[in-house]
Amino acid sequence: MDNQKTDELLETLRQIDREYHRLGKILALLQWDEETCLPPGGVEERAEQLALLQGMAHERLVSPLVGRCLTELGSTTENPRGDEGLPALQRDFLRVMRRAYDREVKLPVEFVSAAARAEGLSQAAWAQARRDNDFSAFLPHLRAMITIARDKARYWGYGAGPGDKGLYDGLLDIYEPGLSSAQISALFTPLGERLNALLKKIPPPPPYPFLEQDYDTGVQERFNRALMEYLGFDTRRGRLDTSAHPFTTSLGPDDVRITTRYFPRSTLSSIFSVIHESGHAFYELGLPPELRGSCLADGASMAIHESQSRFWENLIGRSRPFWEGLFPVLRSYFPAQLGRVEPDTFYRGINQVRPSLIRVDADELSYSLHIILRFELEKQLIAGELPPEDLPGRWREYSRRYLNLESETDSDGVLQDVHWSMGAFGYFPSYALGNLYGLQFWAQMKKDLPDLESALAAGNFRPVHQWLADRIYRWGCRLEPSELLAKVTGERLSTGPFLDYIEAKYTCAF
Amino acid sequence: MDNQKTDELLETLRQIDREYHRLGKILALLQWDEETCLPPGGVEERAEQLALLQGMAHERLVSPLVGRCLTELGSTTENPRGDEGLPALQRDFLRVMRRAYDREVKLPVEFVSAAARAEGLSQAAWAQARRDNDFSAFLPHLRAMITIARDKARYWGYGAGPGDKGLYDGLLDIYEPGLSSAQISALFTPLGERLNALLKKIPPPPPYPFLEQDYDTGVQERFNRALMEYLGFDTRRGRLDTSAHPFTTSLGPDDVRITTRYFPRSTLSSIFSVIHESGHAFYELGLPPELRGSCLADGASMAIHESQSRFWENLIGRSRPFWEGLFPVLRSYFPAQLGRVEPDTFYRGINQVRPSLIRVDADELSYSLHIILRFELEKQLIAGELPPEDLPGRWREYSRRYLNLESETDSDGVLQDVHWSMGAFGYFPSYALGNLYGLQFWAQMKKDLPDLESALAAGNFRPVHQWLADRIYRWGCRLEPSELLAKVTGERLSTGPFLDYIEAKYTCAF
Repeated sequence: MDNQKTDELLETLRQIDREYHRLGKILALLQWDEETCLPPGGVEERAEQLALLQGMAHERLVSPLVGRCLTELGSTTENPRGDEGLPALQRDFLRVMRRAYDREVKLPVEFVSAAARAEGLSQAAWAQARRDNDFSAFLPHLRAMITIARDKARYWGYGAGPGDKGLYDGLLDIYEPGLSSAQISALFTPLGERLNALLKKIPPPPPYPFLEQDYDTGVQERFNRALMEYLGFDTRRGRLDTSAHPFTTSLGPDDVRITTRYFPRSTLSSIFSVIHESGHAFYELGLPPELRGSCLADGASMAIHESQSRFWENLIGRSRPFWEGLFPVLRSYFPAQLGRVEPDTFYRGINQVRPSLIRVDADELSYSLHIILRFELEKQLIAGELPPEDLPGRWREYSRRYLNLESETDSDGVLQDVHWSMGAFGYFPSYALGNLYGLQFWAQMKKDLPDLESALAAGNFRPVHQWLADRIYRWGCRLEPSELLAKVTGERLSTGPFLDYIEAKYTCAF
Repeated sequence: MDNQKTDELLETLRQIDREYHRLGKILALLQWDEETCLPPGGVEERAEQLALLQGMAHERLVSPLVGRCLTELGSTTENPRGDEGLPALQRDFLRVMRRAYDREVKLPVEFVSAAARAEGLSQAAWAQARRDNDFSAFLPHLRAMITIARDKARYWGYGAGPGDKGLYDGLLDIYEPGLSSAQISALFTPLGERLNALLKKIPPPPPYPFLEQDYDTGVQERFNRALMEYLGFDTRRGRLDTSAHPFTTSLGPDDVRITTRYFPRSTLSSIFSVIHESGHAFYELGLPPELRGSCLADGASMAIHESQSRFWENLIGRSRPFWEGLFPVLRSYFPAQLGRVEPDTFYRGINQVRPSLIRVDADELSYSLHIILRFELEKQLIAGELPPEDLPGRWREYSRRYLNLESETDSDGVLQDVHWSMGAFGYFPSYALGNLYGLQFWAQMKKDLPDLESALAAGNFRPVHQWLADRIYRWGCRLEPSELLAKVTGERLSTGPFLDYIEAKYTCAF
């Protein structure tokens, strides 16, 4: 094929991708607004708006023109990167486009619109049910979300029958390409056992009364705005809002928004949410200019994305040097509550191992157990082995098994997370996988940046931002997660570095 | 044509209209977010999003299918309401669809997208220029907006040459169908003269020191939230936010949002903005269920819409009975500032005639003079008689002529209003026309509701809401403004009732 023809085909694809990507950003605004601003009356119309726009985006991507261009450029399902003579960037572009096209083209447009509409309604119903502690009000939406997820996996060719790949594998593949349910189990089962054994060895922590006091939510909000900037979040390129469940969304390359929530008796939840979500936001804001507005301007996978958020939240945000710099600032916002608390006591308090009902408030040790619990339950839901109406009971049973805890309310139990209400089955493993990736990156960073601790203590995050940009952000989703990990660390995914870190932190140095 | 065929054609049109209407609501969210939330970095991407979506909406409306359906149903440019055998609602629907189609089909899609992109950038540049008091930073955008407006009128067949209808008439027709520049001049010229003469007769008001004090903006915000509810705004169906310029936008039949702004030394500006914008919102929220999601779910015209907002702001919101009920509430929010102010003094203070630089803060007497000033200037801008770089000078000259005032800064002068930055030339007359319509409606309402004053004093707005719903809201835009006015009052548009009211209020009863 001559160069001019190749350029034309690529430009056609890029043009469609730009518009598809942009419609995705508009959809993200509709969802952000639903979570942060939408008055209750607007829920139904918003669901219709999501359905309309999702359908229009879908139709753009699955146009026969896209299939033709991909094929003519040599990109097939088996060889997605296309002709070998193309530059690497173009070949990566073709790989990601082919993957998206292959997925979307199998979904009927009516299905896509109906799913978007149902998800819009379901998210709103979940938020209300959570406020009202009323699982039964959410149940019909949960059923709908499970049906949609199962149908989706079936459209993609995954099957539930014996010998078939399971439906759940099809959903996992959305978030973590290349990792099957069996591979995840092979990581999670020993991980869970080791963490459980460790949990039993650790003596119960002393009480830390400063953690539960009146923390004015207005002051919390002011502190968190200062915290974002302290971490290096350029607020000309994003903002912080309040929502029922903290999240990050990219509405454009220079408009990345995070949310948190405020509890009047605790300030830690909002702080660690803000650090966590900032970690996601830094990834999005750090994607390189040449990938802007294209399908390559995305994280390598959801687990890699979570590796970034949990990296900031835990490896930086729960470290001793970090709080050496920040604790005096926090204390100045809450002198009555923290004025007499020693920095070392604060550090121990925020790192105490005390399994809690709420995943996002969990310590680093028990956190992955929350994930394994959800992984096991969603596998059963998608396989049809667990009737949705039995979910609260099974939740309590697993909560006792993994965490030795039982929630009094469904709001603090099965209704605590937004994910299932959005139909995002298969997402949860990303968090625990993110812990694993994150520790492998961290080990490498510590080798590369010998002065890391003193920089963190000085509130100087530039070396961290630079390292992450050079090693991780620059690739967008050009590399598969395993390729990225190999490029940065030379290693394969493993539980070793994470478990070493946890054991060292909670049995020796602590 | 058989009934089944007619139904099919109508259903096809309705389906396209529903989607077009819905895309309009999504566009409104993009714009609302730009005015209230968008971080500065997001401006360029937002302009691209607006351009993409506006283009997609345009393409839906101008599809040849729409033209074919309209024609087959007998709707032509000359006879837009179609076959006489159709029910009245369908004929009104055809009229409005035909009008929208005739307009849009003359605009190339590239023009529509480019205009949306330019408007997105221009609005952001205006907001920044206004903050910086830097007209020169806004000038290139103003030029672009003028060019786009002129091009638009030309596409619609309006021309600037002698004997042609002027370009400005084409723009007026967007907002007030059926009223030409000459007809508006015929109303505005004597109106301006009478108001000017009256202004000279009125003695300068005494000082009202309570108006300028420290009014905590947080308390202002709380009061305004209470005020919305006091007026009967159902906040499950809308919300109040902050923006550089107050506005109302409908993001769906049950999601209508208003904005205001807060000045630390004055509380009246935010209060009257909230009453004004609530008046717009009540109209949108009061549109009847059978018009939902269609092109008929809109105000009869921009001037009719302004008749509603200015009706609430002035005829209700600046009346003595209204403040009999509300002043004690306001005083409870600001006891230090208003505790010793007599209700009568407050009433006189908020009604003092003291021409001000800022249109939205103007008293009822001088307000229309602000409009006439803008009407004269935008006519000249669109006719090419006033080079945009000369606008600030001409503004100051006209400000002296009409208001006997001159602004020290462009922020308080030519940059004060958002309209031209959005390319909304031809909109301003709606405000003064709204005053005229509003007074004609008011006169009728007072006849119909003899207990109106005591209801207002009791904070009972149900009779007002009901009257407006029965007489005005129920029609959506099924009627032309003149038809609506005739149906409600039996009259034609005139300056009489407005001038009678102003003269009575400011020379006799005051």
